[in-house]
Amino acid sequence: MTGIMRNLKVIISYNGANYHGFQTQNNAVTVQQVIESALSGLLGESAAVVGCSRTDAGVHAREFCFNVKTCSPIPCDGFVKALNGLLPRDIAVHSCEEVGTDFHARYCTRSKEYVYLICCGGVRDVFMKDLAYFYPRSLDLVRMNEAAGLFVGEHDFSAYCKAESLETVLTKPRGAVREVYELSVREYSLSDRYIEIIIRGSGFLHNMVRIIAGTLVYVSEGKLSLSNVKETLSGVGKRETAGVTLPASGLYLNRVIY
Amino acid sequence: MTGIMRNLKVIISYNGANYHGFQTQNNAVTVQQVIESALSGLLGESAAVVGCSRTDAGVHAREFCFNVKTCSPIPCDGFVKALNGLLPRDIAVHSCEEVGTDFHARYCTRSKEYVYLICCGGVRDVFMKDLAYFYPRSLDLVRMNEAAGLFVGEHDFSAYCKAESLETVLTKPRGAVREVYELSVREYSLSDRYIEIIIRGSGFLHNMVRIIAGTLVYVSEGKLSLSNVKETLSGVGKRETAGVTLPASGLYLNRVIY
Repeated sequence: MTGIMRNLKVIISYNGANYHGFQTQNNAVTVQQVIESALSGLLGESAAVVGCSRTDAGVHAREFCFNVKTCSPIPCDGFVKALNGLLPRDIAVHSCEEVGTDFHARYCTRSKEYVYLICCGGVRDVFMKDLAYFYPRSLDLVRMNEAAGLFVGEHDFSAYCKAESLETVLTKPRGAVREVYELSVREYSLSDRYIEIIIRGSGFLHNMVRIIAGTLVYVSEGKLSLSNVKETLSGVGKRETAGVTLPASGLYLNRVIY
Repeated sequence: MTGIMRNLKVIISYNGANYHGFQTQNNAVTVQQVIESALSGLLGESAAVVGCSRTDAGVHAREFCFNVKTCSPIPCDGFVKALNGLLPRDIAVHSCEEVGTDFHARYCTRSKEYVYLICCGGVRDVFMKDLAYFYPRSLDLVRMNEAAGLFVGEHDFSAYCKAESLETVLTKPRGAVREVYELSVREYSLSDRYIEIIIRGSGFLHNMVRIIAGTLVYVSEGKLSLSNVKETLSGVGKRETAGVTLPASGLYLNRVIY
């Protein structure tokens, strides 16, 4: 131990299928607990990790950031190799860099990007069972993209928040107002059966991306019109006016921008 | 019930990660047991399924064939839909057709094609943890393909059989002789990090594809030369002269040809 406190910024990916989200919980295995347990062995001290985000049970991350403060002199590249050796195969460390002590993985976030992956039509893809949402028909990407444009900008997303969480959200200064910078629907290169919904914004309410994805599917099905969607964003939106909450398995935290 | 016995040829895919192979075993969940249990509910009679192949624990199938005899008058398209509704998300039914009573999914097989999928280099892909073998460096596809050519044709594959199974194999008329029709290594379209080893043959010994894949990796690493590989196929090959047995997670039964 050098005695000098260092702040490490670490990028990981994880397959969320077997975890109850990132953040530590009682009576459930989370990504944070598994990482902290590996880190305490590696650093020789108990380590408290700060994640960029909670994620729900079953949600995945292609690029998730956490920071951890440590007095260990371990070099960054050694840290990546050693931690990968200690972690299970569904969590991987991509990089580690030393940053200023004021860097905080959650508070310093400028925007986040999520992807919602849907497998459309045909027979379900058994190899993607925990990695995408299976929708048994085809989807109308043109209509979905027309509706997607309505979400861009600053809106009150009350209708796009898990009902049980909204009360707490509304006690905070900004309430349910969030800004969406980008939202689009496109074919995913893996196969012509896959589409991905990409959304980037300042922050997201509980289940917001999964409800937006479900709303775009309702638009494709004709269950919601563009003017219905506009109403959900007008500030008086109630949860039941938006679409269904799609399953966690299709949701990926794609990247975090600082 | 019509009383007339029908023979149904059914094509399925399955993600083998959570199964101890296809064939029924005591004290372990297999694909066959799950299918037979679903079928008995669907057909209203206990159903004995004949699979085209055993597969080992953790091995996947993109296109697996079984046949089942039944007196149920259920139409083939209704059978596909109903069975998909009863099966878990890691098994999917693709097609069903009525065939002659002499069709037997195992005995009528003319050849089988397997794929062994390897993720090369970089950080492990957490989303493919049960779906590919992770090899932390790059592989030499040119050398691997040179060696692959040596396997094509009829050979004694004693060196490519799980040691514990060889004794039984050698009591059979054809012993360990099998014919490989095609073997090649190529990039897999999913990403430039993935390569697939494709092998088609008359039949395969226990672990044969996984040992061939491990042997090709040894050739890439320079641990085995082309003449070493030739010796393993000369009829006096001992298991330890070939490469390592790669993990089940990378292996896919790709298709069965009748």
